[in-house]
Amino acid sequence: MSLLIKGGTVVTHADTHRADVLCVDGKIHAIGTDLDVPEGCEIVDASHQLVMPGGIDPHTHMQMPFMGAVASEDFYTGTAAAMAGGTTTIIDFVIPSPGQSLLEAFNTWQGWAEKAATDFAFHVAITWWDESVKEEMGTLVREHGVNSFKHFMAYKGAIMATDDILVESFSRCLELGAVPTVHAENGELVYHMQQKLLAQGMTGPEAHPLSRPPQVEGEAASRAIRIASTLGAPVYLVHVSTKDAVDEIAYARQQGHPVFGECLAGHLVIDDSVYQNPDWATAAAHVMSPPFRPKGHQEALWHGLQSGNLQTTATDHCCFCEEQKAAGKDDFTKIPNGTAGVEDRLAVLWDEGVNTGKLSPQEFVAVTSTNTAKIFNLYPRKGAIQVGSDADIVVWDPNGTRTISAKTHHQNVDFNIFEGKTVRGIARHTISQGKWTWRDGELHAERGAGRYLKRPAYPGVFELLAKRAELNAPVAVTR
Amino acid sequence: MSLLIKGGTVVTHADTHRADVLCVDGKIHAIGTDLDVPEGCEIVDASHQLVMPGGIDPHTHMQMPFMGAVASEDFYTGTAAAMAGGTTTIIDFVIPSPGQSLLEAFNTWQGWAEKAATDFAFHVAITWWDESVKEEMGTLVREHGVNSFKHFMAYKGAIMATDDILVESFSRCLELGAVPTVHAENGELVYHMQQKLLAQGMTGPEAHPLSRPPQVEGEAASRAIRIASTLGAPVYLVHVSTKDAVDEIAYARQQGHPVFGECLAGHLVIDDSVYQNPDWATAAAHVMSPPFRPKGHQEALWHGLQSGNLQTTATDHCCFCEEQKAAGKDDFTKIPNGTAGVEDRLAVLWDEGVNTGKLSPQEFVAVTSTNTAKIFNLYPRKGAIQVGSDADIVVWDPNGTRTISAKTHHQNVDFNIFEGKTVRGIARHTISQGKWTWRDGELHAERGAGRYLKRPAYPGVFELLAKRAELNAPVAVTR
Amino acid sequence: MSLLIKGGTVVTHADTHRADVLCVDGKIHAIGTDLDVPEGCEIVDASHQLVMPGGIDPHTHMQMPFMGAVASEDFYTGTAAAMAGGTTTIIDFVIPSPGQSLLEAFNTWQGWAEKAATDFAFHVAITWWDESVKEEMGTLVREHGVNSFKHFMAYKGAIMATDDILVESFSRCLELGAVPTVHAENGELVYHMQQKLLAQGMTGPEAHPLSRPPQVEGEAASRAIRIASTLGAPVYLVHVSTKDAVDEIAYARQQGHPVFGECLAGHLVIDDSVYQNPDWATAAAHVMSPPFRPKGHQEALWHGLQSGNLQTTATDHCCFCEEQKAAGKDDFTKIPNGTAGVEDRLAVLWDEGVNTGKLSPQEFVAVTSTNTAKIFNLYPRKGAIQVGSDADIVVWDPNGTRTISAKTHHQNVDFNIFEGKTVRGIARHTISQGKWTWRDGELHAERGAGRYLKRPAYPGVFELLAKRAELNAPVAVTR
Amino acid sequence: MSLLIKGGTVVTHADTHRADVLCVDGKIHAIGTDLDVPEGCEIVDASHQLVMPGGIDPHTHMQMPFMGAVASEDFYTGTAAAMAGGTTTIIDFVIPSPGQSLLEAFNTWQGWAEKAATDFAFHVAITWWDESVKEEMGTLVREHGVNSFKHFMAYKGAIMATDDILVESFSRCLELGAVPTVHAENGELVYHMQQKLLAQGMTGPEAHPLSRPPQVEGEAASRAIRIASTLGAPVYLVHVSTKDAVDEIAYARQQGHPVFGECLAGHLVIDDSVYQNPDWATAAAHVMSPPFRPKGHQEALWHGLQSGNLQTTATDHCCFCEEQKAAGKDDFTKIPNGTAGVEDRLAVLWDEGVNTGKLSPQEFVAVTSTNTAKIFNLYPRKGAIQVGSDADIVVWDPNGTRTISAKTHHQNVDFNIFEGKTVRGIARHTISQGKWTWRDGELHAERGAGRYLKRPAYPGVFELLAKRAELNAPVAVTR
Repeated sequence: MSLLIKGGTVVTHADTHRADVLCVDGKIHAIGTDLDVPEGCEIVDASHQLVMPGGIDPHTHMQMPFMGAVASEDFYTGTAAAMAGGTTTIIDFVIPSPGQSLLEAFNTWQGWAEKAATDFAFHVAITWWDESVKEEMGTLVREHGVNSFKHFMAYKGAIMATDDILVESFSRCLELGAVPTVHAENGELVYHMQQKLLAQGMTGPEAHPLSRPPQVEGEAASRAIRIASTLGAPVYLVHVSTKDAVDEIAYARQQGHPVFGECLAGHLVIDDSVYQNPDWATAAAHVMSPPFRPKGHQEALWHGLQSGNLQTTATDHCCFCEEQKAAGKDDFTKIPNGTAGVEDRLAVLWDEGVNTGKLSPQEFVAVTSTNTAKIFNLYPRKGAIQVGSDADIVVWDPNGTRTISAKTHHQNVDFNIFEGKTVRGIARHTISQGKWTWRDGELHAERGAGRYLKRPAYPGVFELLAKRAELNAPVAVTR
Repeated sequence: MSLLIKGGTVVTHADTHRADVLCVDGKIHAIGTDLDVPEGCEIVDASHQLVMPGGIDPHTHMQMPFMGAVASEDFYTGTAAAMAGGTTTIIDFVIPSPGQSLLEAFNTWQGWAEKAATDFAFHVAITWWDESVKEEMGTLVREHGVNSFKHFMAYKGAIMATDDILVESFSRCLELGAVPTVHAENGELVYHMQQKLLAQGMTGPEAHPLSRPPQVEGEAASRAIRIASTLGAPVYLVHVSTKDAVDEIAYARQQGHPVFGECLAGHLVIDDSVYQNPDWATAAAHVMSPPFRPKGHQEALWHGLQSGNLQTTATDHCCFCEEQKAAGKDDFTKIPNGTAGVEDRLAVLWDEGVNTGKLSPQEFVAVTSTNTAKIFNLYPRKGAIQVGSDADIVVWDPNGTRTISAKTHHQNVDFNIFEGKTVRGIARHTISQGKWTWRDGELHAERGAGRYLKRPAYPGVFELLAKRAELNAPVAVTR
Repeated sequence: MSLLIKGGTVVTHADTHRADVLCVDGKIHAIGTDLDVPEGCEIVDASHQLVMPGGIDPHTHMQMPFMGAVASEDFYTGTAAAMAGGTTTIIDFVIPSPGQSLLEAFNTWQGWAEKAATDFAFHVAITWWDESVKEEMGTLVREHGVNSFKHFMAYKGAIMATDDILVESFSRCLELGAVPTVHAENGELVYHMQQKLLAQGMTGPEAHPLSRPPQVEGEAASRAIRIASTLGAPVYLVHVSTKDAVDEIAYARQQGHPVFGECLAGHLVIDDSVYQNPDWATAAAHVMSPPFRPKGHQEALWHGLQSGNLQTTATDHCCFCEEQKAAGKDDFTKIPNGTAGVEDRLAVLWDEGVNTGKLSPQEFVAVTSTNTAKIFNLYPRKGAIQVGSDADIVVWDPNGTRTISAKTHHQNVDFNIFEGKTVRGIARHTISQGKWTWRDGELHAERGAGRYLKRPAYPGVFELLAKRAELNAPVAVTR
Repeated sequence: MSLLIKGGTVVTHADTHRADVLCVDGKIHAIGTDLDVPEGCEIVDASHQLVMPGGIDPHTHMQMPFMGAVASEDFYTGTAAAMAGGTTTIIDFVIPSPGQSLLEAFNTWQGWAEKAATDFAFHVAITWWDESVKEEMGTLVREHGVNSFKHFMAYKGAIMATDDILVESFSRCLELGAVPTVHAENGELVYHMQQKLLAQGMTGPEAHPLSRPPQVEGEAASRAIRIASTLGAPVYLVHVSTKDAVDEIAYARQQGHPVFGECLAGHLVIDDSVYQNPDWATAAAHVMSPPFRPKGHQEALWHGLQSGNLQTTATDHCCFCEEQKAAGKDDFTKIPNGTAGVEDRLAVLWDEGVNTGKLSPQEFVAVTSTNTAKIFNLYPRKGAIQVGSDADIVVWDPNGTRTISAKTHHQNVDFNIFEGKTVRGIARHTISQGKWTWRDGELHAERGAGRYLKRPAYPGVFELLAKRAELNAPVAVTR
């Protein structure tokens, strides 16, 4: 079981150099220019290509039950589509219903994910709180390789985590060495604005962004960050979509707080004019939360990636077809939230980021793969082209072009938010666990080949925080 | 009933000029250098003195029941002490218990305030929510001259307003033309930190500031501001004590949001080292919320006043004597929160602000009186030296000195946080409603002479906001 | 010589109230509702109108010799046009040639200005340096009522002030109690970019903004501010046109430095797309420095006015006709820089500022008149509706409309950058020195009626700075 | 010639793992746990130790002639001392006199550096300008491996580069693929303040920081950054010492500009109180530019490193002994500027950075070595523990302690600014070019063993900038 990627230029987050990469038994076995090639070794021609760590998408929702529907993309179709775009790992979300056992939900999701074609991991959401939740968080971290928990600050009346839950759960995360992550939108405000807009007769998708304006995200970002920093915990903000939130992250980071931010391929390139589309289905297809934003915010996100205030990119891949979206025909608050993208993220990032001089190829690797692996303690197993790392590799053709379309994509959904966009820079080949699964347009995804990734607790940042806590331990005045 | 202030230099927020001021029947009747003086007119010699609008303290708690105690200063003693320091108007707080009728509470406070020696007004706190609260807010605004409502974001389990209440109440304020004000501290975090510190054996007053670090205020400031800006409402932050909150205000104001900030004389000059005092009573005497802050924050507050990001100064005058404070001997969370200052604010501001070149005399007038009058729609009845304005005037001696001490102050409390400080710049005379109530060291306060001030709804900022709302009214897409 | 403005609503920077205003002998004699009206008093009907201080334009260049041309507007035509728009005072610039005596230049400009119809004053530019310049600055301040000096940081090889001159001149200003003002653009960068663009064959007006991008202004703003703050001097930035410069001002003000910023009516509403106009003359007509800016900067300027980081508005009124502009037909660097606006500033500010809820009527008065008067020590003679102030008044019709056009304007130039814009809110009547010079569309400007305004040295800010300097005086270590 | 570092934990900027490191012929030959060890291989016991890339100090001045003296440390003693502290590469400065040929100066410095014990490179300063300078820059880049040029914005009348030079030189750097670097202080202001202080009788070292306050650095930082960004060039700020400059860097980076910042070990931990030392020699020993700063700035520098706004650390190692410093006995402006530190940087950074939880060990590697190598295109030859990299390695004992003192240090100077500081975390062994030159307290530096490092032009950032320039190329309007 060996495979040689030959003649390419290896690009990592740190450097760029010519080298061949030999994969044996699912691992990177050797890197160099004059390698001993085992007999029967398969050869991938990478001349004029870049050899990079496979993408990691830290934010997907395969086959998620949500708002009365179930996402159309399952773990097999979704991870297969990912491969076609050069992504070889996803981190999905286990979302227990309020009151439900975390372990029970975790097992349910594990069951669904058995069919995954790429490796995968899970964040687990904290949607309610009692002692049993606290206990099960411990079990998940210690026994099941979960090192991150998600908190929805929006979705009042459903899965919203109020401040008391945030405080308890972040504290518990800190004890356990797990990273708290947040969906940062103020759920009370969203709820209020939704009711107000509906009362004004605003029922269409164009009301969606009005119900969750940028301040709503800036507020929640500030709140999550400051709760974390008060407790001495790190925090990771998913799908940062506004200048407001980027500014909050920058403010905290400039005071030394370990705050991480993720942004989505969609938010980087699409603005809120889509909700004005006269075709209801098109407008509704763009309904996700946070929504696409007014012009200007996109630039702030790019600047966030460039300055290091944002570290990762994702998709929030969550597919609902036109007939599912139609549930909100008369009430925008009932449109299932979500858009697709797991297949297109890398190409969009390269085309809009690298081709324009916003990001270097190394920074591209960092924000599509390596940084995520580091933050969630998968590095250097994932996110690296390094001897001993998993052989999850994308062979990237910087001159290849492709026109994105729902007609041709591999995603199991009938719409593509990047429809019609021609990108230069595409995944020519994808190697997953040392196997050549995407071969220049042919997809050889294997149902169930994906493995669940246990992620060790206490990524590096916790050591820093422990030292700070020790130095800042309260001292009583002797009286 | 006439009185002439003769030979002084009139200082307003806008200019400085030599003029005599003639007061008749409680109003300013004429300003000039060659005035017709009525027979029997009393003459106040203001030569070498500055003639300024009397101070307005927008934040006092006279005889407030709080944390199991009742503030030792009542409406008479407190307003009398105010006069001795040049302050001629206070805005106090009606704080209904959760579940209590706002009107009932309002009437209770009105009863207590009948003995006030200076004019006074009330903010009313929103400590709970239902339709009756919403109704009574309307009654208070329309019939009782209340144009501001207070929200405590701290004090969980007591009077804390959660986000749903903030959203409802700010919206109601916007309808009614009343200014929402907030005590900005995250109550969940404070509660959590208090429990954690107690569990660590930190029971003394030095734990108090640790239980509410600066981020706790920055968080709530950001939240209140963004809730307001999402709704299109103004917001006023009481007792801003941190750089964090000033930064949030500046951020919002630089985007055109009408956000106002108040800071306290105490926070401007005292830092958190007081809690390390080996004498328990001294440390406890400084327990107030927000607490005194680490060095550096004081400078940020001054810069806030200088740059216009903070507009007003106050005291949060709330007096508890040593035996009352002793309730928290074994548990800092039980120490009644509050410090005094209504008498000393002007002198401290002048000495530390004007004498150091931080503020001009005109800016001093603005931040001690005029800006408050404008924001709360009392201007130009109060806060002005203008024909027709109330004759509430302080004759200020910029060269007079005084050493502040609990032994000599007029406040009904046994401690003074400015103890031992010698100030240059003192109230030489105070005129209230045209009467000479503080005469160079002699106090002639009259019990019950103070009048309740009805404040009209819709201060100027609401007109702006209405225009903006109109321009930004949502428009449905025709499909 | 008396005139009664009857039935209007007086709006000042501080308040709004119904009152009649009686003007006698060029001064405001009385304000009230029941005034004794002298016999023969002329009556201006102000019902349904606002009565505000006449506009002050602190930045005009009448009949200035510049870039080989002479501005087409002279002191008479320019001040007459100003009146038609509600502006009753201008501050123009004396610009000595390098090597020329300041007094000589001052006298030249005084001669030109004798025909002015409104009152006027002069900033004097420092375009070179030696002991005689230093001396003459003293003479101008002490004997000629100049209290501000202008420094061009751009125009290399002509009137540019390099850092050594800025340091010397700001220091001298500080001694004399005069405000240093700057045109903030980095002249070396502009020169370099001009040469580079010309070398690339970019000769048209569209190259003009590219030769002076926003950073060029941000740089110079930062430099001027920090030179001033190092020396302990105030500084006033003319025609701030970029977010970059507003940010620098905000940064400094938030540290307590007395920095003032002015912006132009044109920069507030026009963006740089004008330079793409296919008609050369139209594009060239917009050539001024700093240039019109990319979208986004306009909002930053409005926010600057709203937050108080910018205090004044002006026009940089400097008119060149099409045939004059044509000097730069083949070389954009030879197009005489300048645009008109003295007539339209108030209407544009009202329509785009007040009608949209960006500014209140009181803030409008502040930024069009009062703040300028205060900064340059003309208050309360100018900028006030107050007994004793000059009777320079505009009676404003908030519902009147007008379509701006070069065909109908009173400015002596063949182009109007606001061409075709219909404004709501116009000067219905203008009173200058107590005379009714603009009567609902009829202009009665009197050649030579304008007086030179001596401005006293040491506006208020200098007292603050002196106190700070004293407290920060260096102390030698005893060794 | 082989050496095995055995039993240690390898720490790079990207990860941490147990591995042995085999060095052969000056290069890293293999990394792993089960390596084939050549016969005769020397073994370095690294158990309980960290194995990290040797430090790179990008800012030293060995044996520099400056201010009438010559730095006491020569290239041999200085690099030997560096080794004793774990630093294995220095980048020194060639500083031509105004008018002198760059190549001539380069050759002079090369001659001096022949005795260096560690590898070294040179930045070349641009202290004047004409066509020959421009030419020689090209020669240096293309033939001599120089890829960075230094610009002193201070030192008026000596080596100061004025704006015209900055613009020309940065433009030339951009063409050549070389990084412009700047010493950011406004030389005109410094000169003015020096003269003013001397005139006030302030002649002692305590006047030194007063002559170059923080704004002076903030100004120049802003200027250099904006000149660079206007031209589309990167820029690297040496010895950033103030919050002001960090803020400028952060502002630019948040807009996507490639700006790099370096800070010094001394500035991170020492404040300006040293200049108040009653002992003249002690105070004078701290005279360097920029000076040590008021409390508060140190924290800003740490936050700069933590947030990534600052990327590198250095020392500005420039030694003058007491008798040399005495040249300024009566005039602080004549005290030769400079302090030592090349030996102590790593230990101080570890003790104050890693032990306190400010920086992780990986971040420590990044800021002491790897980032410098990347910015100046020495990576991965230097700054990496990677097969093929130079075997420049420090074996770090995180538990070893040492008390810093001039009595025991290896630096050839009689003073140590860290005197008496006990650090935990020391260089136990240093390997340079695969040789064991520092063996647990024994120094085996070899005179002349150091090699000059040619650094290739066009580090990665230039590719980005070229793309941006292409996209932003000016386009003429067709008329």
